[in-house]
Amino acid sequence: MDVNEYDLVVIGSGPAGQKSAICAAKLRKKVAIIDRKKTIGGVCVHTGTIPSKTLREAVLYLSGFRQRSFYGRNYVLKDQIAMSDLVFRAQAVMSREIEVIKAQLRRNQVATFEGDARFLDPHTIEVRSDDGSQLLRGHYIVIACGTRPAHSADIPMDGRRIFDSDVVHCLEEIPRELVVVGAGIIGLEFASMFAALGVKVTLLDQRPTLLDFVDREIVESLCFQLRQLGTVFRLGEKVVSVGFDAERDRVFARLESGKNVHGQGLLYTVGRQANSDQLEIEAAGLQSDGRGKMVVNEHFQTTVDHIYAAGDVIGFPALASTSMEQGRLASCHMFGKPGKMIPNLIPYGIYTIPEISMVGHTEEQLTKEKIPYEVGLARYAELAKGQMLGDDQGLLKLLFDPDSLKILGVHVIGDRAAEIVHIGQAAMSLGGTLEYFRDTVFNYPTLAEAYKVAALDGLNKL
Amino acid sequence: MDVNEYDLVVIGSGPAGQKSAICAAKLRKKVAIIDRKKTIGGVCVHTGTIPSKTLREAVLYLSGFRQRSFYGRNYVLKDQIAMSDLVFRAQAVMSREIEVIKAQLRRNQVATFEGDARFLDPHTIEVRSDDGSQLLRGHYIVIACGTRPAHSADIPMDGRRIFDSDVVHCLEEIPRELVVVGAGIIGLEFASMFAALGVKVTLLDQRPTLLDFVDREIVESLCFQLRQLGTVFRLGEKVVSVGFDAERDRVFARLESGKNVHGQGLLYTVGRQANSDQLEIEAAGLQSDGRGKMVVNEHFQTTVDHIYAAGDVIGFPALASTSMEQGRLASCHMFGKPGKMIPNLIPYGIYTIPEISMVGHTEEQLTKEKIPYEVGLARYAELAKGQMLGDDQGLLKLLFDPDSLKILGVHVIGDRAAEIVHIGQAAMSLGGTLEYFRDTVFNYPTLAEAYKVAALDGLNKL
Repeated sequence: MDVNEYDLVVIGSGPAGQKSAICAAKLRKKVAIIDRKKTIGGVCVHTGTIPSKTLREAVLYLSGFRQRSFYGRNYVLKDQIAMSDLVFRAQAVMSREIEVIKAQLRRNQVATFEGDARFLDPHTIEVRSDDGSQLLRGHYIVIACGTRPAHSADIPMDGRRIFDSDVVHCLEEIPRELVVVGAGIIGLEFASMFAALGVKVTLLDQRPTLLDFVDREIVESLCFQLRQLGTVFRLGEKVVSVGFDAERDRVFARLESGKNVHGQGLLYTVGRQANSDQLEIEAAGLQSDGRGKMVVNEHFQTTVDHIYAAGDVIGFPALASTSMEQGRLASCHMFGKPGKMIPNLIPYGIYTIPEISMVGHTEEQLTKEKIPYEVGLARYAELAKGQMLGDDQGLLKLLFDPDSLKILGVHVIGDRAAEIVHIGQAAMSLGGTLEYFRDTVFNYPTLAEAYKVAALDGLNKL
Repeated sequence: MDVNEYDLVVIGSGPAGQKSAICAAKLRKKVAIIDRKKTIGGVCVHTGTIPSKTLREAVLYLSGFRQRSFYGRNYVLKDQIAMSDLVFRAQAVMSREIEVIKAQLRRNQVATFEGDARFLDPHTIEVRSDDGSQLLRGHYIVIACGTRPAHSADIPMDGRRIFDSDVVHCLEEIPRELVVVGAGIIGLEFASMFAALGVKVTLLDQRPTLLDFVDREIVESLCFQLRQLGTVFRLGEKVVSVGFDAERDRVFARLESGKNVHGQGLLYTVGRQANSDQLEIEAAGLQSDGRGKMVVNEHFQTTVDHIYAAGDVIGFPALASTSMEQGRLASCHMFGKPGKMIPNLIPYGIYTIPEISMVGHTEEQLTKEKIPYEVGLARYAELAKGQMLGDDQGLLKLLFDPDSLKILGVHVIGDRAAEIVHIGQAAMSLGGTLEYFRDTVFNYPTLAEAYKVAALDGLNKL
């Protein structure tokens, strides 16, 4: 069989794979990218970021969520929201996004192969599809194969009553009561969407606290706002079994503490299984942990020097934004182009309702590291724009060094959090201090103004 | 009569007056602020920024404007949108905003006087109200009296068929066809709101071009998008008369070129008259031009050293954001506190639909000043978030120095433009280059990502 030779072969066309391939192509390397038929774009486009974030926009709009501060707490735009109303948009956005990705790969002359990949040796990959099989040989290889929801034999998924995050979009109806097992980012994002739709949500997690990398005040604000929507939290509770009670037509989760939680549907979001288990990585001399996660060094190299891994397959934070950067940096490193990632300036965006975003240190980290700090706060309720948008619970918090006034962390919860955090990120990256925000003119009305309000609040405390 | 002595007396409690008073109060000065009864907050809160921008949010939501890319061009959330649906929110936001301002003044111990102000001499101001008259003596004085729509004897305003921007909120119904005379910021903002509601708008202006301080490509995009909504532009056309034809139940504007433009309503937004004509400024040795506009130096001092003027009364750009800064800088200057405004880093936000925002130079300015530049573009259609929000026509444009890669200008049209422009402003202010945007991790999906896309586009051109 002919072997196609490439400078770089990328397995997976999600955010990490795409950016890795395009970065290498821009360095005039010969690049191939492999993905299964009809899954170009990876989990991100098909079952992850794109559909869930599009669903979220539809929920925000159709539920009239932000209109409630004007029209009352029970305002809903569409009284009977059908699942089809919500997923309709996702389909449109996905199709367009796939076109954008394909065009980008084509423009950069990245060869695309459809099929299942497996290693034959450390440099050779076989791609199998219905049309037969092809061999690709890569001088370098990037594994960006992504993850899928982890399944457990104890959890009798039926995709209707008991389901994972991949099939939320296929539900026929919105359950009146939803049990969410697993309160990680994915669990919380879906829980908050359903809560905004008026669904009674119960969140279960074995861990006693939520989102440990996020500032506590922000997490508490999220919990407070979710509770206002009727969400019940059961943290530090282990689920021992899950099932469907046909007689009562209800799903249940049995907890180790003896409690029983019932609902009309159950979303199971405990852990992700990396797809590396399907690549026969042993043939390349590689290993992964029990859930397929691969270990890399700071350059995203695996234990085999010329094979890199990036994206969800290497674990936390498993966000599309960081995956893209990892993919790009892997290619920069292999082809000797300077590139660095400053971990402290990586933003995190969590698309719950309300949205959360952060960059830099949390109060807890600073305290642990014995770095003195002061806090400047701005509440959206004080901002004209917060009032206009109907978000009167949002919060922006600046952590800063009381001597140098340098920004140590930016934490936002509320509308457009994931956008405006980048203003603080720019100031942090480029050496701006609290005085920059005090002295800057902000458009009025905006949520960006929160930086000025927070800076003045912080300076007043000194 | 007793005279109340103050370090600073501020005439007008709009954005300029508020920030001037609060800045002085924070410097531990004794401050008084004067406004007419029930108009605390100035035009901004009562007839200007707050109601018009709140109206805009209501229009965006109730018209389903951004949903049209999903549900088709004729999608409207409420088939019969009544004016009362739209202005309802404005009332709520105004009330809350007045409370915020009052609380802020109270907290800073600024004395508030209600009534009409007039100068008796360069240091003494009389405040007259129904309850009698009071005398205030200020060591320094800030005139921040704002403006009102200019009226002309030739324009027979009735507040129903032919009206100015102050009374748009009092209209009983939404006209089916609207003629807008005057295509300045206010005229364009209202024209675009009505166009989004499905109103057939005709815009008339004597000037041959729109928004001369804005980048041409952005203005052309605005015109293109307004035309898609059915808006007709008649620029370089002088209106010779305006009237109501009772027989045909229609308003008309007669143009010098002989054309006649008809409609169901006519919004007249040609010019603003500053309220300085009501202050008897001659008693203080001051003068203003025909429309009450006052001239100030770079420290916002009038021709009488201890009297400053700030906000709309000093003319362009007459934006709440810049007015606040002017008020603050006036107080800094009079009390010897350092403070500076870098004109090049002042953002402009124009709340048309779509929104426009900019900071720094335009292509036209750079060409005129013979400064070489290159352009990096990002289209919202390429961004996942642009697709999710339904804005596929937005555009972010970075102008940069091709040698140093310094950012020379940021121009945005589209959703959240007024928010995300501040990311570019921070980079410009703090010496960031195009490489900053190339190397930064952005949350995904966001519109902020446009900076990275634009930076890569720009770098590819070098």
